[in-house]
Order: sequence, then structure tokens, then C-alpha cells
Amino acid sequence: MSLLVCITSWDEAPWLARFRALLPGVPIVSMNEAYDPAAIRYAATWRAPHGLLARLPNLKAILNLGAGVDHLVADPALPNAPLVRVVDPDLTQRMTEWVVLQCLAQLRQVKRMSAAQAARHWDNRDDPPAAPRVRIGVMGVGVLGSDAARALKAVGFDVAGWSGSRRDLGAIPCFAGAAELEAFLARTDMLVVLLPLTAETRGMLNHALFRKLSRAEAIGGPVLINAGRGGLQVEADILAALDDGTLGAAVLDVFETEPLPKDSPLWLHPKVTITPHNSASSEPDAVAAYAARQYLRNEAGLPMENVVDLAKGY
Amino acid sequence: MSLLVCITSWDEAPWLARFRALLPGVPIVSMNEAYDPAAIRYAATWRAPHGLLARLPNLKAILNLGAGVDHLVADPALPNAPLVRVVDPDLTQRMTEWVVLQCLAQLRQVKRMSAAQAARHWDNRDDPPAAPRVRIGVMGVGVLGSDAARALKAVGFDVAGWSGSRRDLGAIPCFAGAAELEAFLARTDMLVVLLPLTAETRGMLNHALFRKLSRAEAIGGPVLINAGRGGLQVEADILAALDDGTLGAAVLDVFETEPLPKDSPLWLHPKVTITPHNSASSEPDAVAAYAARQYLRNEAGLPMENVVDLAKGY
Repeated sequence: MSLLVCITSWDEAPWLARFRALLPGVPIVSMNEAYDPAAIRYAATWRAPHGLLARLPNLKAILNLGAGVDHLVADPALPNAPLVRVVDPDLTQRMTEWVVLQCLAQLRQVKRMSAAQAARHWDNRDDPPAAPRVRIGVMGVGVLGSDAARALKAVGFDVAGWSGSRRDLGAIPCFAGAAELEAFLARTDMLVVLLPLTAETRGMLNHALFRKLSRAEAIGGPVLINAGRGGLQVEADILAALDDGTLGAAVLDVFETEPLPKDSPLWLHPKVTITPHNSASSEPDAVAAYAARQYLRNEAGLPMENVVDLAKGY
Repeated sequence: MSLLVCITSWDEAPWLARFRALLPGVPIVSMNEAYDPAAIRYAATWRAPHGLLARLPNLKAILNLGAGVDHLVADPALPNAPLVRVVDPDLTQRMTEWVVLQCLAQLRQVKRMSAAQAARHWDNRDDPPAAPRVRIGVMGVGVLGSDAARALKAVGFDVAGWSGSRRDLGAIPCFAGAAELEAFLARTDMLVVLLPLTAETRGMLNHALFRKLSRAEAIGGPVLINAGRGGLQVEADILAALDDGTLGAAVLDVFETEPLPKDSPLWLHPKVTITPHNSASSEPDAVAAYAARQYLRNEAGLPMENVVDLAKGY
């Protein structure tokens, strides 16, 4: 029951060591060494080269090691084996921290406060509104989005959610599907995006969508906060919307190309806050333990957790 | 039943207008115009000149228009009339926003992220710990501190409280009095201070106290976050503790002298975040309505709300 580790863009060595420690007796092999494709039953992957998994005829499951499965789903030769995504409480916690931080930083004008400090200027004019007067819309209310929505409400914001299909978030009103998107955007001062990247969502964050956000300007124009995937956003449209006043500010953790190229005008735009795709890094030890548990569950005849619905793409 | 408005350091005109609108028929007079001291029954004050209230022989109540009563209590001629302080839900909300923002900004290293952005540097090494591994200690768990503690817990921090006398904060452990102060400090990575300024608390935030904070260094050394009163802190000790490593960072909204003098070394210290005493400004309309309600309650024979215990000073 060999497990193949197929990792690009991360260092694979610690992952091999973790799986060997977690699954003693199971042959753990790297895609970068010689191996018999027919012996591989499980693939633990992060951004596996497209086409590689199709060459494993006896694959029983694909264990993705990051939160997004968009790279895998984009593989035109993705084999028809169950695909497990990571749902990690530690990752959820970190994402919620990042989202609450960025919403509060926009509300309380951290950039202005920081510039005032650098100028030794006691700038206490113009109090912002209190959070209950600011309406946050969370797009994508799965595990990450629903926890972020809960925490935003706990610190006082007026929160609603939107997702492709109907969700119940208890006291938080939830909009669903294309039919309710305009109503959702029209009541949104800060748009927090935690959508998966699929054929439907690619490029969704564009000028036409930004124009539908609330113009109540509680906070100086609508704010876009994207920690989903860079492929959701059209960066040329974000820049145009910031410059023509359609957006008041943008906070981006993800980009069309990562790392963000040095010559991107986003870096130094005064209305843009950038973090380097670190809103929620998984703890590798927790993710490896999660993936090893799926291996053991499947071998024990138990259902694996969080198997992706490939028709939806998440 | 005249009401005297005694305000310094704020513009009094909008306050006079608010009280005239809220209490039609009641003579509202300014301390800056001619008035008969014997006709004044209520004083609505912010930083009233010391000695002024003692010249009002028929005063029935003093209505303070800000959260802190330390300036009033420091008046050696403070008359023996009931003193009402402001408890404003809007002010509590704003303070909680500021406290959660500053704790998350320290956790997620906003200064480092902001410098990286300015340098167009994709700096995603070294993930910080998740909030559940960071212990926050809230000193002062009255209305403001207990709400901040609740919100900090809701975003995932490990929170405890301390106050002079025993308080019950439900699931949040609470230390009390001098006897338990050392144990409280020893389990604190980030110290959030929302204490009132009294004879007991003046100068309490000094090097001896900082040395008792946790040295576990979950976040690169203990962090001091003071939004109480500037008189609580010894600024020379804060600077010394930052420079000798006793403190890892300081976030200050209040100062020994306000506005903070231009030549203070705090302004440009790389480990210091400064906000200009705007952590929680009251909404003047809400405070005026609150003060007017106390006037009406007292005239109607009902007890006023939040009368200060002068023996304690808050």
C-alpha cells in the first residue's frame, strides 16, 4: 500500500519524514526517486505535475496537502480516484484571525494611524463608524467563511454570507446563488472573499461586480478583501476600480501570479494592503497527521473525510 | 434646576446645543458666561477647572462626559455631590474593536508585513503561532475590560482577567488583588490594560511589573497594550524595557502628557505603536443623551446609573 509524495514549490524532505513517522511500515516514496507506478495506492500531493497521477493505475485516493484543490482539478488527466482536501482547525483559526484583523484595520484606518505616527502627528480627528454600522459580506461560507463570519459578528460587525448553494449560518443571514448575488453585494461595505477557485468563480472579482457593492460609503468606499485564490480576481480591474473610486481599498493575500511580481503596481498603491499568501498557512505537522488519518481510515474500511465533489470543484 | 456645562479641551458649543435639545425648558448655561452659582443644580463636565464645582452651593449631581473620572477625583475641592460616569455601549464597542485589532496586529506582525510591502518583498517565512497559543491578560475587567476579554476569546486567544476585587467572567479565568497579580503576569504574553487611574494604579506599569510577565516568548517577548490612562505608565521604564528586551513591543493609546510631545522617543521607536487617544471616543450624541437621562432620573426620584464610589475612585 505505497504512498507517493508528489510535491512541487515546497521542500518535500520534511513531508517524507513526517509520513514515515506517522505510517511506520508503509512504503513512502518520492516522485523524484525511482518507483513502480503500479505499487502506488495513495498520493499525498501539493501542486503535483499535471499528468503524473494519471500514470498510477492502482491509485485508491489522492490526499491534497493544502486547502485549495484548484491545481489538481485543473489537471486534464486527473484520475477518477477520491480526492481528499484538508480541513484543519488550525488553518481555520488562522484564516479567521487574518480576516478579523484586516476588517478591523480597514475600519480603524491603520494606514492613516501608521502614517500619522511616522510623522509624529497626533491625528485624532474623524472617528470612524462603530463596527455595527459596517456591513461585511462574506463570499464563500464553507468551513473557513462560516468561522470568519461568526468571529466578525462577535466583534460587532453587521455580517451576511453568500455562497453558490443555500447555507444555514444561524443568526447570520445568508444569500445564495446568482439570483441573490446583487442583493448581497448591494448591502456590502466590505467584501471578504473566501471562495474556492472553480470554472464558475474564476475572474468573478471584476469591475462589473465591484460596481454592485454598496455606495453608502460608511467607510470611504467599498473594500475588497480576498484571501481565496488569485484566480478569482482581475487585478487590472481592481486597480481601475481603486483609481476611479468604485473601490475605496483592497486587501489582497492572493494574486494572479505568486509571488506577486516586483513590477506589479499593486505593491505600492496607497489603497492596497498586501500580505504574501500567508493569511492561513497550515501547520505541516497537523496536515500530515490529517492525511495519514485518511490513509488509515480508508484501509480500515471507514469513509475518508472531506472528499471533494468534483462536479462542484470543492 | 439649571445645568452648567463645564468643558475644557473640547468645543463646548455642540454640547450646549445637545443639552438644550434634550432638556427643553431646563436652563442650560456655560461656565464661560455669567451665571448665578446658587441656581446651578447639575454640572455636565469634562475636565472642569479644579475648584469650580466647589463654588456651586446647591449642586445635586456631577455628570461626567467622558469615561475616566480621574481628573475630577483629583480636584482637591471636589464637592460631596453624587458623581455619574459614562457607561456607553458604543464606547465599549469601539474599545473592544481597538483591543482586538491591536492584539491581532501584534500576533500577525502587521509592522513587518507593512515594511515588506513597502519594499515589494514577498516575505512569507516564519508563521506566527495561532491565537490559542497566545495568552492575553486583561488588567481591569469592568464594563470595557470584560467585553474586550469576551471578544478576544471569540477570535481564539487564551484570555484571563485581573482586577483589584474578585470578578466572575464566566469561562474566562479571573485573578484578583495584589496577592494574585504575580501569577496573572506570569501567564501573560500580551498585557491589555484598561484600568482606571487611581492612587493605587498610578505608575503601576513600570519596569518591576514588566519583569514579571511571561518569558515564554510565544511572540518575541511580552507586549504591553495600554488604553487605560497615561498616568498608569512610566514611559521611561517602557523605553528601557523595550531596549533591554524585557518587553517585545508596546501599543499605547494614552500617555503621561497628551498630546504626546513631538520630542518623545516613543513616536519613532520601532517596537512602539501609537494611536492618539482614539481607542474609544464616545459618540457625543450618545453621551449627551445618557447624561440628560441621569438628570431626568434624579429629578423623577429614580436612582442615577453608574454613580462613582469615591473611596475606590471609579
